[in-house]
Amino acid sequence: MTTLTDVYRTPLGLLTDLYQVTMAHGYWKTGQAEREAVFHLHFRRHPFGGGYAIAAGLGQALDYLAALRFTEDDRAYLATLTGADGRPLFDPGFLAYLGDLRFTGTIDAVPEGRLVFAHEPLVRVRAPIIQAQLVETALLTLVNFGTLIATKAARICDAARGEPVLELGLRRAQGVDGGLSATRAAWIGGIAGTSNVLAGKLYGIPVRGTHAHSWVMFWGDEPRAFRAYADAMPGNVTLLVDTFDTLDGVRHAIDVGRHLRASGHDLLAVRLDSGDLAHLSIEARRLLDDAGFERTRIVASNDLDEHLMSSLRDQGARIDTWGVGTKLVTGNDQPALGGVYKVGAVADPDVDGGWRYPIKLSEQPIKISTPGIQGVQRITRGGVLVGDVICDALATAPGARVEAWDLEDPTRGFVVAGDAAEPLLVTVMDGGVATAAAASAGDLGAARARAAADLAALSPRTRRHLNPQPYPVGLDATLHQRKLRLVGEARARVAAELAARDAEVGS
Amino acid sequence: MTTLTDVYRTPLGLLTDLYQVTMAHGYWKTGQAEREAVFHLHFRRHPFGGGYAIAAGLGQALDYLAALRFTEDDRAYLATLTGADGRPLFDPGFLAYLGDLRFTGTIDAVPEGRLVFAHEPLVRVRAPIIQAQLVETALLTLVNFGTLIATKAARICDAARGEPVLELGLRRAQGVDGGLSATRAAWIGGIAGTSNVLAGKLYGIPVRGTHAHSWVMFWGDEPRAFRAYADAMPGNVTLLVDTFDTLDGVRHAIDVGRHLRASGHDLLAVRLDSGDLAHLSIEARRLLDDAGFERTRIVASNDLDEHLMSSLRDQGARIDTWGVGTKLVTGNDQPALGGVYKVGAVADPDVDGGWRYPIKLSEQPIKISTPGIQGVQRITRGGVLVGDVICDALATAPGARVEAWDLEDPTRGFVVAGDAAEPLLVTVMDGGVATAAAASAGDLGAARARAAADLAALSPRTRRHLNPQPYPVGLDATLHQRKLRLVGEARARVAAELAARDAEVGS
Repeated sequence: MTTLTDVYRTPLGLLTDLYQVTMAHGYWKTGQAEREAVFHLHFRRHPFGGGYAIAAGLGQALDYLAALRFTEDDRAYLATLTGADGRPLFDPGFLAYLGDLRFTGTIDAVPEGRLVFAHEPLVRVRAPIIQAQLVETALLTLVNFGTLIATKAARICDAARGEPVLELGLRRAQGVDGGLSATRAAWIGGIAGTSNVLAGKLYGIPVRGTHAHSWVMFWGDEPRAFRAYADAMPGNVTLLVDTFDTLDGVRHAIDVGRHLRASGHDLLAVRLDSGDLAHLSIEARRLLDDAGFERTRIVASNDLDEHLMSSLRDQGARIDTWGVGTKLVTGNDQPALGGVYKVGAVADPDVDGGWRYPIKLSEQPIKISTPGIQGVQRITRGGVLVGDVICDALATAPGARVEAWDLEDPTRGFVVAGDAAEPLLVTVMDGGVATAAAASAGDLGAARARAAADLAALSPRTRRHLNPQPYPVGLDATLHQRKLRLVGEARARVAAELAARDAEVGS
Repeated sequence: MTTLTDVYRTPLGLLTDLYQVTMAHGYWKTGQAEREAVFHLHFRRHPFGGGYAIAAGLGQALDYLAALRFTEDDRAYLATLTGADGRPLFDPGFLAYLGDLRFTGTIDAVPEGRLVFAHEPLVRVRAPIIQAQLVETALLTLVNFGTLIATKAARICDAARGEPVLELGLRRAQGVDGGLSATRAAWIGGIAGTSNVLAGKLYGIPVRGTHAHSWVMFWGDEPRAFRAYADAMPGNVTLLVDTFDTLDGVRHAIDVGRHLRASGHDLLAVRLDSGDLAHLSIEARRLLDDAGFERTRIVASNDLDEHLMSSLRDQGARIDTWGVGTKLVTGNDQPALGGVYKVGAVADPDVDGGWRYPIKLSEQPIKISTPGIQGVQRITRGGVLVGDVICDALATAPGARVEAWDLEDPTRGFVVAGDAAEPLLVTVMDGGVATAAAASAGDLGAARARAAADLAALSPRTRRHLNPQPYPVGLDATLHQRKLRLVGEARARVAAELAARDAEVGS
């Protein structure tokens, strides 16, 4: 039986941008296909104007890589593509090569659930360049979206200040698997449960839910609807009270609560889904307390996000459980993480050290690539995160005191000093085979625990939502100096070419 | 072999919110499961502040309905769920009932690609209430997302004023199927092609693409990289020119263009992906024209959407092909359509006419449900859309001149007068079986043609992006008067109850 999660375990070779396939064809035709290269996946800005992100999506990415294949059907499709000259775009020999292609590379990655910061490699791919290129798009899709939603969930759970958050967004998700993957990532980010039954089954996430307005409309009035529900499922009674009038609805719920108590059960909660949630929750709390239903919880929902939740708390709202849908599963104010995938090194036996380090220029320093094979060393002091250093992975990892240089202002050097250091990336795939570490790196329960632990170890100054204090992240001396040198050389080459063109025009 | 589109053809019974299953359980326990009900899927606000939407997602929804089933595995999972009392949430008899459940209802729906407006039913479900309720979530997911992205695509294609738009968003999509479904919907909305190879294969959409920055970085400089690419695929040469310096890159591309011409090919395009696209495209055009490459196109990309594209056009940008990614496939400024699914009628042999019409109140008129079984009559004059009337589907459909009442201001009546009228909804599933009309309603090529035709028939005043003129949509006399009456009765009942409670407290 096929399920949605199986999708990532099926050959998705064509789940890529066409330019990856045309480049792959180019590498193959020029005899470069098998040359090793190292790519890094990173983002340049923290989502939602925040100060951090939570890595997610790796488990799905590893499933995808392990299953990567171009089926006969896929190759038959590629054979139909033509260029502007009407001739086939791809050589039959290349398509045969694709038929045998498997992912044989090495993946070093940040385990799901760990805090990550702008510029850091979340995934490092070392593989024959043809493979590293073909997998770019899917890796970006999976890691961008997972990381976006895990981060949004953490922010929303922060705004709930320890009260449970339920994710209710499937109906507004971007496609079926948009919904499932969002629930998976939100679970890593800290939600307490979901309405999404399939996510509950596939990922072991607690599922929650009671009834909709339609239940009340079907029965015609709340007394009949609430009573019918309570009789059918007396152990799971949360009543939605706003079909006609919220506070009248609370009174009807209390009536049914008394009926439930008579049979040894209780009214677990009432749910408010419209109107002035601050006022209505305060009044509902008063009615419930006055009637002796102090333990009955108040669940609130209606286009909530971390900002509205904070505002409701400021107004003294008496909300015990937060239902968050659309704005959690889509990211709302930022529906995509802008992760990119850049080549940092190309194997070259003619070069000292065996690696050539390409560079890409830009008018914006933040968009200039970082040449090298990159790791990340995370420095802590007394268990508290004090800074991350992106370091040359071919050198010995630095200790707890490191000089670093800012990526957005390369003139600014600083020292990260703590009492402990650990590498952030772990090897999760080696020669195309998942390592022992992969199971934990992609395990949902472990990921959720890592997110909670990392968030607890993050300074509240960086964790806050408004104008967070930037967390120190820099390049180590090797990467910084190499980058400066290569940027200088590339700019000089461009300037010389432009001067030569001008001279040509002048002559 | 499993593919992503097959997913919709597999049993996705659990792809729903838990409250649908608890309500289903409640209907089953109270002996109401098989009672027929009619639900309508509609949205309340046009997305992106615009004046229209384009229906999409129906084809996927019909696949889902035809395959609906709760597998043994699904039922085993449901059997593990417990209430707060620790007892199983669901009766074994109910789970057995679910095992036999198939969708046996009737679906009337707006064919994909047609223009739709706020308040209109996009999908009408008539089925035993237990079925109608269980399918709510998935129908909303599929139709909300498809409609959102088809609409965004139409707006972006509008801003391109006839020049082709390529969709490049897979890497920033919300999950794998978020990407595929977005491409599918964008094709309906008018894009000319996509980078998404799997979407090309599965949906027959033209695929486009050439090379990334990494290709240039691999070869170390543009002359070598461009030449290698041109030699490998001379019939498909679009060169990305901004790895180091955009205008220097254009000159390198021209050099390779001369080389291509010498072998009977040509430089199809250059692509700009960063910097001041207005200025750079004008300068690139000048360089290309001066060198005799007047037919070489300029492709531009970099976080484009309809607003930025209009601004670039206003600045005189010389862009021939627009590459749009993130902001198209996620909806960006509005990443979810707020479609809802409301019960309009419940079969009741004791009621005159056989249908009872439930209502939901709200402080906002726009959120009050519309009791009845609803169709839509679209009125045109000389082929131009002049207004839609939501009408009682049990009565004879009105002709080309209809009195209607505003849904947001029920005091406002108006007349829609044209020379032709057609029903917007067609029966696509009857007794759980797809009708002959379903094939066309969900066919992508036909949907794309319908979108183009409907957009051409829409007044530019409504089609414009900024402050569009509202398109006339109203309720017919039957629905309007029934709604007023039922709202009045429900409000009176609530008021009487509140008064009785007050009297109780006072006594």
